[in-house]
Amino acid sequence: MTADGWSKKVYLELLTPTQEDNRSDSQRILEGLKEKEQLEEEIHIRPSVLKKLYPICEQSEWKVTATLGFDGTRWEILALESGDTTQEHYGLCADLGSTTIAMELVNMKEGTVVAQESVFNPQIAFGEDILTRIFYEKDQEEKREEIRKATIQGLIALMEKLKEKTGVDTKKCAAMVIAGNTTMIHFLFGMDAFCIFQTPYAVHSLKPDVCRGTDLDLPIDGFVYCYPGKANYLGGDIISGIIATEIADQEKISVFLDIGTNGELVIGNRDFLIAGAGAAGPALEGGVVKTGMRAESGAVDQIVIEEGMIHSHTIGETEPKGICGSGIVDLLAQLFLNGCMDLRGKLIAGSSKAISDQGGELAVEYARGLFFYQNDIDEFLKTKAAAATMVEYMMQTIGMTMKEVEKFYVCGAFGTHISKEAGVTIGLYPDIDREKLISPGNTSLLGAQKMLLERKNRQKVEQILEKMEYIQFGAVEDFLHLMVAAAAIPHTDYQRYPSVVKELKRRGRIE
Amino acid sequence: MTADGWSKKVYLELLTPTQEDNRSDSQRILEGLKEKEQLEEEIHIRPSVLKKLYPICEQSEWKVTATLGFDGTRWEILALESGDTTQEHYGLCADLGSTTIAMELVNMKEGTVVAQESVFNPQIAFGEDILTRIFYEKDQEEKREEIRKATIQGLIALMEKLKEKTGVDTKKCAAMVIAGNTTMIHFLFGMDAFCIFQTPYAVHSLKPDVCRGTDLDLPIDGFVYCYPGKANYLGGDIISGIIATEIADQEKISVFLDIGTNGELVIGNRDFLIAGAGAAGPALEGGVVKTGMRAESGAVDQIVIEEGMIHSHTIGETEPKGICGSGIVDLLAQLFLNGCMDLRGKLIAGSSKAISDQGGELAVEYARGLFFYQNDIDEFLKTKAAAATMVEYMMQTIGMTMKEVEKFYVCGAFGTHISKEAGVTIGLYPDIDREKLISPGNTSLLGAQKMLLERKNRQKVEQILEKMEYIQFGAVEDFLHLMVAAAAIPHTDYQRYPSVVKELKRRGRIE
Repeated sequence: MTADGWSKKVYLELLTPTQEDNRSDSQRILEGLKEKEQLEEEIHIRPSVLKKLYPICEQSEWKVTATLGFDGTRWEILALESGDTTQEHYGLCADLGSTTIAMELVNMKEGTVVAQESVFNPQIAFGEDILTRIFYEKDQEEKREEIRKATIQGLIALMEKLKEKTGVDTKKCAAMVIAGNTTMIHFLFGMDAFCIFQTPYAVHSLKPDVCRGTDLDLPIDGFVYCYPGKANYLGGDIISGIIATEIADQEKISVFLDIGTNGELVIGNRDFLIAGAGAAGPALEGGVVKTGMRAESGAVDQIVIEEGMIHSHTIGETEPKGICGSGIVDLLAQLFLNGCMDLRGKLIAGSSKAISDQGGELAVEYARGLFFYQNDIDEFLKTKAAAATMVEYMMQTIGMTMKEVEKFYVCGAFGTHISKEAGVTIGLYPDIDREKLISPGNTSLLGAQKMLLERKNRQKVEQILEKMEYIQFGAVEDFLHLMVAAAAIPHTDYQRYPSVVKELKRRGRIE
Repeated sequence: MTADGWSKKVYLELLTPTQEDNRSDSQRILEGLKEKEQLEEEIHIRPSVLKKLYPICEQSEWKVTATLGFDGTRWEILALESGDTTQEHYGLCADLGSTTIAMELVNMKEGTVVAQESVFNPQIAFGEDILTRIFYEKDQEEKREEIRKATIQGLIALMEKLKEKTGVDTKKCAAMVIAGNTTMIHFLFGMDAFCIFQTPYAVHSLKPDVCRGTDLDLPIDGFVYCYPGKANYLGGDIISGIIATEIADQEKISVFLDIGTNGELVIGNRDFLIAGAGAAGPALEGGVVKTGMRAESGAVDQIVIEEGMIHSHTIGETEPKGICGSGIVDLLAQLFLNGCMDLRGKLIAGSSKAISDQGGELAVEYARGLFFYQNDIDEFLKTKAAAATMVEYMMQTIGMTMKEVEKFYVCGAFGTHISKEAGVTIGLYPDIDREKLISPGNTSLLGAQKMLLERKNRQKVEQILEKMEYIQFGAVEDFLHLMVAAAAIPHTDYQRYPSVVKELKRRGRIE
């Protein structure tokens, strides 16, 4: 149950006009609203609503429901209906991801999610990865417009799916909250996104104002709030995640790690927030792995090795087609724990029947006919090192150790699917109490939902942006040096991974 | 020269982004604006402008001109141009009359009028008079929409005329101010206007909020402010007139009389304002007169009688087709002064060759083959009595006499054309120093222009509406009684018209 969202529906029982009280209909409604809602903000009436005053007011005998949307400064009456329709009060929130767009239909009265849908981002038609899309639209307005339209089409498709699923006319929503990274927001507004990857990284806009859905060609009556970003590589999806996990409200320190296509990291509490980002992701997601694939049907997602035999599980229990992030992490952890791979990540010939020479390089057959090559391992370890190093470097910067960390959030689909144990084993995660390792799922979407239902989170966002300090890892001196150390499994410095050492001892791999 | 209008154009020379200063383009521009303009209000950027940041900013080497429109609460950047274009800064203001729509293109930088155009209100296609139009659209949404579109087409036609005349792209205007009566504003917004003529006279809206031109289907970038009205019969055109004549700022008392299709009257000063309205006009405009016509080519507009001979002047010096308001007033004054008509307005048979019996009633041939009938005179005197009585009644109500009146404004085309002397002679105007009788012309348009150039007039308008007391003359007891007395020429009480008495004596009509 919420009353402070980005939209309101208010039922009014007004007095019928008389000789003594012949205020205009508009004034009658506005005064009725002010009386009932005690809104500090101005209330406006959209011209399209003026047209409807007659005959609605008369026919309903002055019992009407007004739908109000918040434009960031004022309330605007977007619709007027006969009788009490406050039960049908819905809003939309979306995570505009570069691969997947997810949307939720939210019951604004109850503060509950009615339904969720997701689609692949239609931008993919212009490039699997963001950079390809950017080079597609760079300096070409009409192509930029294609990408913008594709983005909108994705959102519209979701609105329609949600309508089909629930019967709710999503077009009538008076508010939509969107969280996406800086590139996605640029594409959404039809802005050239090359600036995001080009020094001095001065983007066109980090904080678009609240606007009408129609300004974006979105077929909704109401207004759209987009989470603002902090920097080119630290976008609104992360800020949304901070709102979702509430790490900026806690006394204890939290680590917020989002490893998707890029790796974004935030460490802090209510007193400070330090953030950074780097191109960590692709390999973790299986991007640069020969047989890597998304976590969808046919992807090997779990692996166990017993007596040198590899047992793999496939999403949808179908014929395996490739391997996804969680499968890779399992595979490497198992190879390492079973002595099939050394701490430098080199496969050990003869340590398992599954390991063989394939065209001059060792490879492990993780499923029938599917190989994971030494080179894949090296690539993967580089990127796991990058992610781990971001955390390590930042902890050093603020002069803290993992002991002081209360919660370690691993967000995004990746975090949700990989096994914590395997993540620790290969040194992707720090070796801390497992219950401190949290996979909150899609925090970008969750934060969008929280914003939609609680307008005041907007002020929180402003404070977070104020407080937050941003580091460009690229610009960091000894970053590569640190990465080398972090490339080992789990880490050159074994002392940091007592539980892994314990397991290796149990298995008799080390004394 | 003005800086406080409803729009701004600001030229900015911004710093090129660097590693040290890599603020987003939007932030760079917003901060540049705040620094240069010291605006208290928030500034937003319209999404369509975000698209243009690139390549405009780079190409212009960060020397850009921003066009800002005021939405009533915030400023919005509507356009961004390379270099300094502050010289081309224009706005539009319009008087939305039921018969004629007039529009001015205003140079917002210089505070001067560049050009003015007018067209007949296309609504006329749905009825010469307002009531016909209202009965046409009453309860019929699609017909109401026809009238709304016709209204918009009228405004668009004027924008195009102004563009042709001046070469200025009127679509780029960031602000438009419209003044019109309550019915015209209802039609403009597509509201059913029947309420205006039906008890309890609770209209749909007296005060539409500032809205985007596009919300009204007007092809302009900027915002539209419509003068609010006080009541069903006292609309924004009159409030605009009060701003134009500044009667609400004066210490001395002014009378503001607008006799068009309706008669509207405001009396007051900076301390009080009392207003009223009545259906006075039609006859004055020649509406109910058999050969009456608008003040256009072919209309007799001036008349002199010498030795019983009628000499008439025709607009355009063409073959006379009928008679307009100013002609009628001249005719009656001359008939009276020359003893062809008595003080009750009855034609005197034999007093002039021009007077003859036409089908059982006396009539005067004011131009070859054109007759003004006794019945026309009676009708006209009724309405002149109505106008005069409104003034008289209101003066009584506030307990004042004409001596205390500093300025007597007669607004509208009618006031502009009729001769003051004749107006006084027939008792349409009070017998006061002629220089106190002022014909300021189209004060509705003038007020719209003042508003466009001075935003702060909006607060004045709010104060005026607060202060103003409105009288429904229809509801007044002894109004008809007063009217009878005022039906005489110039008035049953001769003492009120010393200058007319003097002239009658001079002519030997009375001792």
